[in-house]
Amino acid sequence: MRTVVWQSLSKEQRVSVLERPAITEGKSITSAVEQVISAVQADGDKALKELTLKFDGVAPGSIRVSGDEIQAAASRLSAEMIQALEQAYDNIAKFHRAQIPQPVKLETMPGVVCEQVTRPVNTVGLYIPGGSAPLPSTVLMLGVPAQIAGCQKVILCSPPPIADEILYVAQLCGIDEVYNIGGAQAVAAMAYGTETVAKADKIFGPGNAYVTEAKRQVSNDFRGAAIDMPAGPSEVMVIADEAADPEFIAADLLSQAEHGPDSQVVLVTPSPVIADQVSDAVKKQLQLLSRAEIAEKALASSLIVICESMTQAVSISNFYGPEHLIVQTRNPRELLPLLDNAGSIFLGAWSPESAGDYASGTNHVLPTYGYTRTYSSLGLADFSKRMTVQELTADGLAALAPTVVTMAEAEGLDAHKRAVTIRVEKLQEK
Amino acid sequence: MRTVVWQSLSKEQRVSVLERPAITEGKSITSAVEQVISAVQADGDKALKELTLKFDGVAPGSIRVSGDEIQAAASRLSAEMIQALEQAYDNIAKFHRAQIPQPVKLETMPGVVCEQVTRPVNTVGLYIPGGSAPLPSTVLMLGVPAQIAGCQKVILCSPPPIADEILYVAQLCGIDEVYNIGGAQAVAAMAYGTETVAKADKIFGPGNAYVTEAKRQVSNDFRGAAIDMPAGPSEVMVIADEAADPEFIAADLLSQAEHGPDSQVVLVTPSPVIADQVSDAVKKQLQLLSRAEIAEKALASSLIVICESMTQAVSISNFYGPEHLIVQTRNPRELLPLLDNAGSIFLGAWSPESAGDYASGTNHVLPTYGYTRTYSSLGLADFSKRMTVQELTADGLAALAPTVVTMAEAEGLDAHKRAVTIRVEKLQEK
Ligand SMILES: [Zn+2]
Ligand SMILES: [Zn+2]
Repeated sequence: MRTVVWQSLSKEQRVSVLERPAITEGKSITSAVEQVISAVQADGDKALKELTLKFDGVAPGSIRVSGDEIQAAASRLSAEMIQALEQAYDNIAKFHRAQIPQPVKLETMPGVVCEQVTRPVNTVGLYIPGGSAPLPSTVLMLGVPAQIAGCQKVILCSPPPIADEILYVAQLCGIDEVYNIGGAQAVAAMAYGTETVAKADKIFGPGNAYVTEAKRQVSNDFRGAAIDMPAGPSEVMVIADEAADPEFIAADLLSQAEHGPDSQVVLVTPSPVIADQVSDAVKKQLQLLSRAEIAEKALASSLIVICESMTQAVSISNFYGPEHLIVQTRNPRELLPLLDNAGSIFLGAWSPESAGDYASGTNHVLPTYGYTRTYSSLGLADFSKRMTVQELTADGLAALAPTVVTMAEAEGLDAHKRAVTIRVEKLQEK
Repeated sequence: MRTVVWQSLSKEQRVSVLERPAITEGKSITSAVEQVISAVQADGDKALKELTLKFDGVAPGSIRVSGDEIQAAASRLSAEMIQALEQAYDNIAKFHRAQIPQPVKLETMPGVVCEQVTRPVNTVGLYIPGGSAPLPSTVLMLGVPAQIAGCQKVILCSPPPIADEILYVAQLCGIDEVYNIGGAQAVAAMAYGTETVAKADKIFGPGNAYVTEAKRQVSNDFRGAAIDMPAGPSEVMVIADEAADPEFIAADLLSQAEHGPDSQVVLVTPSPVIADQVSDAVKKQLQLLSRAEIAEKALASSLIVICESMTQAVSISNFYGPEHLIVQTRNPRELLPLLDNAGSIFLGAWSPESAGDYASGTNHVLPTYGYTRTYSSLGLADFSKRMTVQELTADGLAALAPTVVTMAEAEGLDAHKRAVTIRVEKLQEK
């Protein structure tokens, strides 16, 4: 880990030291994904089978996973695993149920009622990446809010073979249809629909560069589908004072580093002692990890920032805008009102990031890459949309009429004015 | 207006009759906007002055409008205008203040506290188009929620000369800085900042094809800015039964039609009598309009759909997903629970769209072009972001540990597991 002393840096150096690496999407990915999307649009299921054979090396018997297969998954899982998944499900469900919005309804003036109503997005598509290990936690993070929001149809795509953990969680979340498809072809299938795959209104979930590019392309096409949020490499920032436990901090930094070689890992502390101790502890703990090689690559570009005060640590964090922010200080809660631009915040020594990654109840789908300045932690709101409603009485309209007429005149919109005056005249006739 | 009978249409015809015209963005717009953005990034204020002279034919004395000029605007407005703008401001402020979310905080299990906190987007940029008439209503629709959300800095760009109505409303909304810039160059300036123009985190507001393309481009660049929502031509759908007043419906259809030649205008009714009467009333009222030529063009592609029942009218509306939905039926409120995929809904004979466009309190910035399926009516949430927080006690973590350990093992994430076990071991040592 590289250590810098904040007060010794110029303004430009401060910006550049916290700069994220540019994501260089090759033109080859863009055009490869364009071809996949075109093929799925043109040939539907046939294209899906061919592309799955080509990219995943599997000829799926059927695109859709049968209800029997999903049912059978539970019987192959340990009791321990089922208990863990259900505990996580319960906590995540509780936290997302608490996000159900209050209806908004009020009279802005006598006879003018305005409301905001919330409706679920009708059909949502969840993408779960494949790889060496299954990701049931991501199914929970997407499937639980979809279920609580009341989406009419929830579909899930994942490259075959789909692990039992994923099928089991899909069933817990009441997911309607599960498909044996991965990659850009899965995103294309959900965005446009095929003979077998339902068309989704909005697509959620992480993936590799092809999946990310496919999500970008379908979201730029109004016939395609909306997406959850822009993607970027995962990140953690830890703010620590001299009271923090360096072993805990090292473990947290490493759990971020093992996500991938492009993971961003930053420690900010006013204590040079803590900085040294964490640096040593990281080296020691690294030896014990099965994914040490990946973590080592991420650590090569990781950073320890020694700052002057907690106030400065907070401004560094607010400037950087980390996906995950861990606060290990004597009184972490007193910093909360000052913290901004973070995806999810972990307060205190007993709140490791992995608790939130899996089971505390918060969502692990978070804005990254600086998008925390404008995007939100994934939540119930992302599976819903807000419509407004207004209902005026005749008297309410009459009272509001002069305002509308004056403004419509100023804006040169004659018919807008007449839509009000024609009604007021009718009232006066009565 | 073209009339179709829904039950006589095939499934394909039903889809095609409600299909929106494709937005054909010329490649020339894309590259022209790319050049403008590059120029502003490279030359800042100097580029802004050159582009303003080139596109708006004005050499602005200063890019920023002085506080004195803003102060002076009120003195040039009529008392009637000031009263209208303040009435609209009050209603809009009331409705958006009612959207302040409840904080979410709960224990998902003993010792595991999860929270959702809301923070304003720090700096927001508002774009107000120029043209033959000023658009103070749009300043209200963007400026009021920014003010209530508590954004730290609100900036506004509009092509010079900026009308007094706009300056007056900017002052009402506490907008910090107003700039004499329009078009793609205004979007570029707010997205990247210049010597004079502050960099915005998120850009809001309508505009022509160049502004829309500039918003798209800066939102696809992570160094740029987020944007409010995708743009499309404005739309209205009216659902009416035989109790409706055809004069009112005609006035509402025309107020949509006068927005622009690409406005989408649709009436859905089970009553052929109403269909005929509205058609006649539209022709008659059209004669009276100053913008008759524009409205006529929009009407050329407008549609009357005769359906079988109100239930069918509702499904047609939910399928189409109109930006504005006006319901003129005997008991409009009974339909509300069935309505979905609409930007803003106007219930009953006394709720014309122009009331919501200006002053009822609801926001007139709405998803259009079918984006109502996934996007929301602009509201306080768009000027804020949600972060999650968790704080575990030592006992809370110990209770959650088996779940996290089991799931981290299944996902092959060693360091995630160790971040928990290292803490639990430390606890047991005590
Ligand atoms: Zn993690
Ligand atoms: Zn309008």
